[in-house]
Amino acid sequence: MSSLRKNSQYETEINHKNSHLVILTFFVYNNLSLSKHKIGIIMSKTINGFSKLTKLEKIEWLASNFFNNDVKVKQILMQYWNSNPVLQDLHDDFIENTISNFYLPFGIAPNFVINGKDYTIPMAIEESSVVAAASLVAKFWSTRGGFKAKVISTVKVGQVHFMFNGDKLELENYFNSKKENLFKVTEAITQNMKKRGGGILDIELRDKTSELENYFQLHVTFETMDSMGANFINSCLEAIAKDFEKESIQIVMSILSNYVPECLVHAEVSCKVSALYAENSELFAQKFVQAIQIANVEPHRAVTHNKGIMNGVDAVVIATGNDFRAIEAGAHAYAAKDGQYKSLTNATIKNGVFKFWIEIPLALGTVGGLTKLHPLSKLSLKMLDNPSAKELMEIIAVAGLAQNFAALRALTTTGIQKGHMKMHLTNIIKQLGASDEEKAYLIDYFEHKTITHNAVVEAYNKLVGDS
Amino acid sequence: MSSLRKNSQYETEINHKNSHLVILTFFVYNNLSLSKHKIGIIMSKTINGFSKLTKLEKIEWLASNFFNNDVKVKQILMQYWNSNPVLQDLHDDFIENTISNFYLPFGIAPNFVINGKDYTIPMAIEESSVVAAASLVAKFWSTRGGFKAKVISTVKVGQVHFMFNGDKLELENYFNSKKENLFKVTEAITQNMKKRGGGILDIELRDKTSELENYFQLHVTFETMDSMGANFINSCLEAIAKDFEKESIQIVMSILSNYVPECLVHAEVSCKVSALYAENSELFAQKFVQAIQIANVEPHRAVTHNKGIMNGVDAVVIATGNDFRAIEAGAHAYAAKDGQYKSLTNATIKNGVFKFWIEIPLALGTVGGLTKLHPLSKLSLKMLDNPSAKELMEIIAVAGLAQNFAALRALTTTGIQKGHMKMHLTNIIKQLGASDEEKAYLIDYFEHKTITHNAVVEAYNKLVGDS
Repeated sequence: MSSLRKNSQYETEINHKNSHLVILTFFVYNNLSLSKHKIGIIMSKTINGFSKLTKLEKIEWLASNFFNNDVKVKQILMQYWNSNPVLQDLHDDFIENTISNFYLPFGIAPNFVINGKDYTIPMAIEESSVVAAASLVAKFWSTRGGFKAKVISTVKVGQVHFMFNGDKLELENYFNSKKENLFKVTEAITQNMKKRGGGILDIELRDKTSELENYFQLHVTFETMDSMGANFINSCLEAIAKDFEKESIQIVMSILSNYVPECLVHAEVSCKVSALYAENSELFAQKFVQAIQIANVEPHRAVTHNKGIMNGVDAVVIATGNDFRAIEAGAHAYAAKDGQYKSLTNATIKNGVFKFWIEIPLALGTVGGLTKLHPLSKLSLKMLDNPSAKELMEIIAVAGLAQNFAALRALTTTGIQKGHMKMHLTNIIKQLGASDEEKAYLIDYFEHKTITHNAVVEAYNKLVGDS
Repeated sequence: MSSLRKNSQYETEINHKNSHLVILTFFVYNNLSLSKHKIGIIMSKTINGFSKLTKLEKIEWLASNFFNNDVKVKQILMQYWNSNPVLQDLHDDFIENTISNFYLPFGIAPNFVINGKDYTIPMAIEESSVVAAASLVAKFWSTRGGFKAKVISTVKVGQVHFMFNGDKLELENYFNSKKENLFKVTEAITQNMKKRGGGILDIELRDKTSELENYFQLHVTFETMDSMGANFINSCLEAIAKDFEKESIQIVMSILSNYVPECLVHAEVSCKVSALYAENSELFAQKFVQAIQIANVEPHRAVTHNKGIMNGVDAVVIATGNDFRAIEAGAHAYAAKDGQYKSLTNATIKNGVFKFWIEIPLALGTVGGLTKLHPLSKLSLKMLDNPSAKELMEIIAVAGLAQNFAALRALTTTGIQKGHMKMHLTNIIKQLGASDEEKAYLIDYFEHKTITHNAVVEAYNKLVGDS
């Protein structure tokens, strides 16, 4: 049976591979020869001036010190380099010490209808089922009125944290006398943002001494329009802090907050319960609502519930060049705002109507950062018809809601493992290096059997041994 | 000055690009010709059977319906395809509806010393400064005893959520009579895990009716050794639920929890306060501790504080093929466990010794999932000397702690913007398409000036106009 693997398609692929390797190998040799002398002196696991080495020197050092000079290491890293060196340079410069590109699968989920408009949503994510779930749910709701989404507010926050050990009234007077000037010292920074309709909304003095001795804040609110605004906010805060500082005021730090409960978006779907399914519509709706109620009283469930939402949210956040750690932190902290960690979604059945919605804080940008620098982020935004930051908030909230709908539907009906184990099986088969024919046989074989890693390996070995 | 851009290096790069495009274009044309007839009938923004189209058909549909047939769309997506079709197939199959690869920069941070052992840590992340910060902090602590890390516990949780409207005593008796069999029905699934030292630790019946009417759980604890264990746990739970179910027990859902407060790791650094810096060591240490105290009383700060930690954590989580949404959800929920969202790190000064540590839940795998399937994840794990899941927990906790040290050090001394704005400037210059000479001029020009997008564009225009 092993001869099955040597089909003509496989051979064609190998030929393609080789023709490319010639170019790549040539390119590498030219570069390597330049740096051999430098390489000689850096054969130690601790190293000075690493960032100043060239990319190939970094790889040489790594291979030498952590891979026993295994030549495969270079090959694996370099097979992911873009063959266009100008494009590769662009990606290398996004961060420091880059040696390759980590591929996240870039998929698309069609058939989303949001506020009456058609969308295909770009998703960058490594987890299987997420894009499939998004597509299925998009289709499902496209014939039931689609998704409705609306931004509730877009206020962002930054704070100057400081210590003051003195008369509080004196501090208040000082702040009030300074306030106008605090706006003034940021004018060079806010000028452009003001033209676009944004800027600093307010600066407040906050007394936090009941929580920590001598601790006060300048709590500053911002409108940053289509930019996420981190650089803008931090620059404003540092200018404010510099002007506000004096001998009795010790600035600890000045920094934006990723907690953005006032940068909030709502998205929902609704339809008659009877329109949900041809059969057992009532029971489905009930169990669905129950599943959310459970998430609201049991943090063990709520965390996983929201994790599923973030599968959809992050996939679009990454695809559009936004910062998913900021989004994650803001969303989970919001879920915990009432003192107990709860669901970000909710559902009701009222007068025969099923309604399912999400409220989630999303501080996003459609300009600045990588949004227009990463060619695939730029393309993702274009795919979404170049949305404003507000529109992107709506789209991403919908992506999260869709993912939660898919998860709760699977969990409360067939269970989540049916789909997952199918993917699991495919992954194990892939790891075993099975041919297409062997794969088809194994999928058929496990149709009604329990899938474990062991069982698949056994079945495969039996299959290969039999041939 | 525009002639500067046409230097010889640039021309060489373009030649490389073209030689590759010939191969790529040939490959694409061959495939396209097969599907033109199918393409004709799918020119609509809503579509049936999208997942069944070939990759090129998907792109054709997308370009036609969302990009006005712009030919550049195909070029942009295809320039990211790997030139080795076998490798590209592998990546295409990780998720559904893949049309390209989203590049995350893959960087490395050398000079980490953890429990006396040297590490170079792989990081996949799009945000600048993260890898640089990791490298700097690693170096700093490598001469002060390095990082110490220790896993506290590795218990994972899954739950069968069900409704029971009857006599509680009867339910307890039923559970006790069933319990042994609940273990038995999972034996086919747990067999292999048991051999590796793991399995189901316990099954508990929990009464949650005070929080939600009729709501009970089977709360199941697991040891999953070197695998993250999601599939294993979910398969066990579904088998348990199936056996436990009866007419009076309505199963709502069976699912693992990403809330893992008992899958916990501790990492720390410490040294004499006087060894921190040559000057102002005391003041530095004090402000550092203050910054953490602030995060513990002010959620607006804590969220950003922990976000910075997750910059380091997620970068390694992604590089090693783990699921960062699971890690994010678990970490932030843990930060909120006391009813108020707080810092994941802590610091003290005692008897002249500065100590800084993190406690973070991390449910990770070094086998299963993408860990061994994604060639760069496999390589990342090898770079870390093929750690056990426990060792990977320690390494990733250290990556988070290092990131927090860098952030607090910058915030409490020079401010965070100094480094950020330099990167911001570089990004704007890149967007403007400036040559290396123009770039050098602009960086010099803004050395002591306020960097705003506007100011940089103005300076650039003036520079180009002058030539």
